[in-house]
Amino acid sequence: MDSFVAVPNGSDFPLNNLPFGACKFKSDVDQKTRLCVAIGEHVVDLGQLQAAGCFTGPILSQTDCFTKATLNGFMGLGKPAWQEARATLTRLLSSGEGLLRDNVALREAAIVPQAEVEMQLPASIGDYTDFYTSKHHAFNCGSMFRDPAAALAPNWLHLPVGYHGRCSSIVPSGRGVRRPWGQMLPLSASSPVEGPCQAVDFELEMACIMGSGNELGSPVSADEASSAIFGLLLLNDWSARDIQKWEMAPLGPFNGKNWATQVSPWIVTLDALEPFRCEAAAQDPPVLPYLQESSRHTWDVALSASITPAGAAVETTVTRTNLKHLYWTFQQMVAHHTAGGCNLNPGDLLGSGTVSGPEDTERGCLLELTWGGKQKVALAAGPDGGVVERVYLADGDEVVFRARCEGGPGGVPGIGFGECRGKLLPCGYSKR
Amino acid sequence: MDSFVAVPNGSDFPLNNLPFGACKFKSDVDQKTRLCVAIGEHVVDLGQLQAAGCFTGPILSQTDCFTKATLNGFMGLGKPAWQEARATLTRLLSSGEGLLRDNVALREAAIVPQAEVEMQLPASIGDYTDFYTSKHHAFNCGSMFRDPAAALAPNWLHLPVGYHGRCSSIVPSGRGVRRPWGQMLPLSASSPVEGPCQAVDFELEMACIMGSGNELGSPVSADEASSAIFGLLLLNDWSARDIQKWEMAPLGPFNGKNWATQVSPWIVTLDALEPFRCEAAAQDPPVLPYLQESSRHTWDVALSASITPAGAAVETTVTRTNLKHLYWTFQQMVAHHTAGGCNLNPGDLLGSGTVSGPEDTERGCLLELTWGGKQKVALAAGPDGGVVERVYLADGDEVVFRARCEGGPGGVPGIGFGECRGKLLPCGYSKR
Repeated sequence: MDSFVAVPNGSDFPLNNLPFGACKFKSDVDQKTRLCVAIGEHVVDLGQLQAAGCFTGPILSQTDCFTKATLNGFMGLGKPAWQEARATLTRLLSSGEGLLRDNVALREAAIVPQAEVEMQLPASIGDYTDFYTSKHHAFNCGSMFRDPAAALAPNWLHLPVGYHGRCSSIVPSGRGVRRPWGQMLPLSASSPVEGPCQAVDFELEMACIMGSGNELGSPVSADEASSAIFGLLLLNDWSARDIQKWEMAPLGPFNGKNWATQVSPWIVTLDALEPFRCEAAAQDPPVLPYLQESSRHTWDVALSASITPAGAAVETTVTRTNLKHLYWTFQQMVAHHTAGGCNLNPGDLLGSGTVSGPEDTERGCLLELTWGGKQKVALAAGPDGGVVERVYLADGDEVVFRARCEGGPGGVPGIGFGECRGKLLPCGYSKR
Repeated sequence: MDSFVAVPNGSDFPLNNLPFGACKFKSDVDQKTRLCVAIGEHVVDLGQLQAAGCFTGPILSQTDCFTKATLNGFMGLGKPAWQEARATLTRLLSSGEGLLRDNVALREAAIVPQAEVEMQLPASIGDYTDFYTSKHHAFNCGSMFRDPAAALAPNWLHLPVGYHGRCSSIVPSGRGVRRPWGQMLPLSASSPVEGPCQAVDFELEMACIMGSGNELGSPVSADEASSAIFGLLLLNDWSARDIQKWEMAPLGPFNGKNWATQVSPWIVTLDALEPFRCEAAAQDPPVLPYLQESSRHTWDVALSASITPAGAAVETTVTRTNLKHLYWTFQQMVAHHTAGGCNLNPGDLLGSGTVSGPEDTERGCLLELTWGGKQKVALAAGPDGGVVERVYLADGDEVVFRARCEGGPGGVPGIGFGECRGKLLPCGYSKR
């Protein structure tokens, strides 16, 4: 089905995507946050459509959820509401439907070029959890820091290992992030030092945003999780490897991670991802019953990370991998997270951990790509063919993640996630 | 100075305390949340006082911060506002001041017995961090799980080790908590099992609530932290030791902790604690400059944990310790937490970790008191002199923490924190 809004070939946002986000119109005097979906190179302001009575279905006609400042209320209405919104928007934006197409005033007010808006965080994130679900990534890290013969910790094949992250420092795509300062133990030193991080890394992750929550004390099964997850987005788990390495025994990463986490602006719903569903990796040994799924699945999402080094005008793709390589599914992460009774709320963010694939070219962070700093990554420095090398990121380097689902069955157009983009700014703390 | 509100001898809440909290009046039809301070056996509704124009100082006369549902806005106004509120309330509630004392209607509406209110979480907690700052606790845990000769991890004496916790499952005192279910590796087993936790423990902690926040990328020094911290409260870091032990390598505690964290309802301000200030433990080796304090201090707060075993009518105090035993101060925790640029917001919660002292009777959790389950703790079963024994908690056991500052200089009355109380409910999950 086509839309009356132009959708360029290969766009991340054809009519079958309709990802949800939040933005500000650059032209708005009051800079209020508006909830929206993307189509082609435009955003559609859902609040204006709702105020104009465009949502006529049984659920959304009874609420003003899209006139709020966050998507959390809408997400909390549950999957029937999400599907009703998707059905209504698909119809409203299609070529054959005149209601919005022919209402020039509403169309021009509510459908705005993406260049004229500034995307915000797509949800109010009450809690953020990061997992460690790529076997390739865990194996590589365990091989570097421990022993290839015992690279995976004893629990790794039995549960999706995760830890709680920091919400306050989650920033949207496009925001610069500042090289952190901290405490680390230099190689061959016996005492730690303080100073700017010397090992700034990215971690290429996907994350899910919870739609339906659960009450404290009410676990969610892996099967139930399929209808509790609202959608997926890209996540850059910015990491300070030297700070992390020194601090993390025995309670896990802290200042190595909490200075910035960056997400892409659009939440691609599980309904949009449905044509790109595929089987998830086989698990051996079998998992305990609470982690079993009656229909074990993930989605075929091609991921890439690219770097534009400081001063260069072109980017170099340093890794290409795929969501389907993960050993644990988002559904299993939800089941494990809630197994003891922990409550998840609408808008909560669950990161997958670095998504590495089986090949050397599919490693999702510089720690792995450079094998702990032993190798270098070559980046094009400009159109003249010059090359710069990196072990970790230099000030001014810009990192961009992209994700696409290509070639759905029956000619379903491919869909994408937009970008997760961030530039590393100098440390610059004057306070010490 | 005395108050016209009766304050029983030995009360936690004399006029020199005035801790802040949030409550609902049981009689309110709309069950709205009211911000309040405690005095004697009453609460004082700050919203009513503010609406009546009682806050005449330069800051608080210009805001309606006390008519909101959370203290966060008031806390975010900064220390001058907190001191103005304290000065105004001290005057308004004193015997010699007629403004409130003689306004019968306002007095009767705004000053309500604690028995007629239900205390809520004292702040909206956006992020929660738990530290591990008692050297005695860290040494005991390291001795049990590793080696007494290398009990402290190499980083422990150089930085306050901490990890991010879960906000959604923070509950107020009085709420029951449900025994979690999860995955654990039984002793001598080669594969993990799933089932109810067999090792439910408490951890006796204090926590600080941030008042002033900092921007992302703007570290707070330890000296600055003294005026950024709003106050302290009690925290029970409920722990599932068997789940925690199996899951926590290498990324730290997760489901072992995220099923419940419980806090006392009253935030005792640093201004109220000032007379009870004392030197903090000496640190050797010296800490790095970013962790140094020009006036290193903590507060002399006596802490206790008691258990009323299921079916019994009396409680047994199982440990008595003191906040001053901590090796790292809350000011250092703030300095370390923000060193890399991480932003703290008003209402953020920073737990100290288990507060254990040097003596065997000063251990702050059952893991230590029973030395990893090797010894038993005897509890009075009732007034008839019977005794029951515990390694970990049984369903129906109720745990209560208390904290007091006794005998300030110049006859300053002692102050207390109220209780952090919770009963362990059976696991009872039917979903498996």
